[in-house]
This record gives sequence, C-alpha cells and structure tokens, in this order.
Amino acid sequence: MRIAVLGTGVVGKTIGTKLVELGHEVRMSSRTPDNERAVAWAKEMGPNASHGTHRDAAAFGEAVFNCTTGSASLEALEQAGRENLAGKILIDIANPLDFSRGMPPCLTVCNTDSLAEQIQRAFPETRIVKALNTVNAGVMVNPSLVPGDHVLFLCGNDATSKAQVAAWLEQWFGWKRGNVIDLGDITAARATEMFLPLWLRLYGLLGTPHFNINVVGGRPRV
Amino acid sequence: MRIAVLGTGVVGKTIGTKLVELGHEVRMSSRTPDNERAVAWAKEMGPNASHGTHRDAAAFGEAVFNCTTGSASLEALEQAGRENLAGKILIDIANPLDFSRGMPPCLTVCNTDSLAEQIQRAFPETRIVKALNTVNAGVMVNPSLVPGDHVLFLCGNDATSKAQVAAWLEQWFGWKRGNVIDLGDITAARATEMFLPLWLRLYGLLGTPHFNINVVGGRPRV
Repeated sequence: MRIAVLGTGVVGKTIGTKLVELGHEVRMSSRTPDNERAVAWAKEMGPNASHGTHRDAAAFGEAVFNCTTGSASLEALEQAGRENLAGKILIDIANPLDFSRGMPPCLTVCNTDSLAEQIQRAFPETRIVKALNTVNAGVMVNPSLVPGDHVLFLCGNDATSKAQVAAWLEQWFGWKRGNVIDLGDITAARATEMFLPLWLRLYGLLGTPHFNINVVGGRPRV
Repeated sequence: MRIAVLGTGVVGKTIGTKLVELGHEVRMSSRTPDNERAVAWAKEMGPNASHGTHRDAAAFGEAVFNCTTGSASLEALEQAGRENLAGKILIDIANPLDFSRGMPPCLTVCNTDSLAEQIQRAFPETRIVKALNTVNAGVMVNPSLVPGDHVLFLCGNDATSKAQVAAWLEQWFGWKRGNVIDLGDITAARATEMFLPLWLRLYGLLGTPHFNINVVGGRPRV
C-alpha cells in the first residue's frame, strides 16, 4: 500500500519505518522537498521509502498519517492540498501542544474544540480518524513495549473508516482489537487530546515513555 | 475525628455516609442551614451526623472535603470563611464541569489553570489536596467495586498533607498505597480535571460508573 507520513519528527520516523518494514511504500514529507531528516530517512530505508513536500506525499498516499507538530498541522495539511486528501483516511496522531509558555506544555485548543475537529472542518471530504495520540511513538507501533493489556482510543465521524483503522492498528502495529476503544464521533478527540497533560505528568514521574493506561471494570470494544 | 463535608449531592452523601460508618463525626453543609437533603441525611445517619451552613461545617471540621459542584465551589468556600479553613487540609473532589452548553459538559477552567489552583490561590492558608475527582462516588469510598489494580491521583503543594491524605484514603476508603499516585504540586490538578472528558466518554460507552484506569508499564508510588 502507498502511505503518506506527514512530518519528520520522532513520530513520523517511527510510523514510517514500521510501515516500510512491513513492505509498504511510504513517502515522508515536510514543508520543503529536501528536508534533511526526510532525505536521510529515505536513503536509509531503501527503495520503498521516499521523501517530498506535504503535497507530494498526500498525492502519493492512499492513506495519510498526520505526524506533524500539532501547532503546525493545519498549515501542513493546507500545503498537502484539499484535492490530494479528499476521500482518503487521515489518521491524526498530532496533539495541539503549546511549548511557548514553558514546560509542561499546555494545549493550543481544548475543551470546546480539538485539533482533530479543526482538521475535519477544514477538510470535510477527508475521513479523519483520531488515533494513537495517547501513547509514545515506540508504543504506537509496538504495544508489547508495555506489558499486559492497555488501551488505545480512536474516534471519528465515519464508522467504516474507524473499522479500517482498527484493522490496520492490529495488522500493522499489533494492537489487539479488544484493546482498541471507539470513543465515538470526532468530538471525542477533545477527550484524548486533553489526556495529554496527565500523560505528561506520568511520563515525568515514571521516567519512561513506555507506559499506557488500561481501562478496568468494563470492556468496551471496537 | 470531626470532618466537614461541603455539599449535599451524591459525592457529599457518599463520602459523609462512609465517614459516619467509620465512626467519625461529620457535618454536611450547604448554602442554607436547613437544606432538605442535609437534614434528611443527618437524621438517617444518627448522632454522629449533623448539618449546617458551609460556615458551620468548616468551623466544625478538623479536615474538609469539598464535594460541592465545581462551578459553585469558590462561592461555597467563601461562605465557609477563610478563618475556618486556615491551616486545615481541604480535599478537593470537585470538577469544574459546565453543563450549561449541554451534554457532555465542558470545563469552566482548564489548560493553564484549574479549579484546585483557583481554590489554593483564594485560600493560601489552607492546604489543598486534589484527590478522588477521577472516579465515581461509589468507587471513591469502595475501590473494590472495580476489580484488580487501578489508580487514584493526588496533588498539592504540601507534601505532609498529601501523605496524610494518602493515609486517610487507605484507612478510610481502602485505597492501596501502591495504587495512589502523587502527581506533584497543585498545578497537576489541571491534568486530573482535564481527564474528565475522557472519563465521561468512557462512562457513556461502558454504561456503568464503576470503572477506573490503571497505569501499566511503570509503578510510581506515594
């Protein structure tokens, strides 16, 4: 499958690398066509990996991962182009973290809105599924880094797209269906993005990003 | 011990009832001296239970539970009186939920501030410990309603007060020390209050409030 990975940070590299290892063709993108990190990554990963602008990647991919910095996501997606994203599933992993006020970061949007909703409004023809944003990049593609059962949340307005993403999460990354919780429509992204402050506190305490939460006392399932 | 329980809702009644059952003297309060629910509760619970205004209760209690509606907490605590709260531990269970915009509620304060911080700023001589606000009232006083290990968060500026609250949580309600996580100073209340949107989504999905989260992959402990 041809997959676009927007963003050259740790999340983009981790997702992109895993997908290439699985045999997919992955194009990693940034604002410029020759981003140093994207070029180096594509060279290292071999013929199934390529790099380009957000527009190049979005045109190339049958599905799109938004791994850009949350505060830059809307701009990056505008660059990708409405027509290149229309009709496609976009898995939005970004969190709208604001580091400008110091640590720990706060959110640039929350409570009555969310980044995923902003993206869905800006790209009504794209099927946004918010997922993976509540765990560390390593855990995203390898849930066994955390022992036992622990959960991943997804949400979005299109049930078929969510079912497809749940299937990919299982096939590509090893997330058991039973541990993936569909929280509802895209407004539920408020809940998962607002979990970040707790995640960041726990990260500080635990000293490892390889942790997650489990829901105990009920088993809602996709 | 003499304990003030501010608030006559489900949380106040649950906490107050448990404390009376344990042999404590509990005064439940509201804005008025003869709130119907507080009067009925005190009558039902017997000689160790009493009712009164927030001022009466705060003057009476050696420790104070804030079980008022989050949007009314600051006003209730003003009524309780600075001098009646000074030097005491106040366990803040309230969440700043705003039901005025429909369901699910949003928060009246979040992200760069929290209800607990507002309370701590307004009552600098009171030792605010935010705790219990991430679980249902029944689970607060009976964690075994949820099977296995699951966690409770606390935070506050005074380490001694947090240690005292952790001891009470164990002795009074049965929360294992190992499942109580000290998230840090009172600003960490942003994280636990902002967990509410996720809690509410899960509640909707699970159809029972008797659930909680566990942290997997690391064991930070009080």
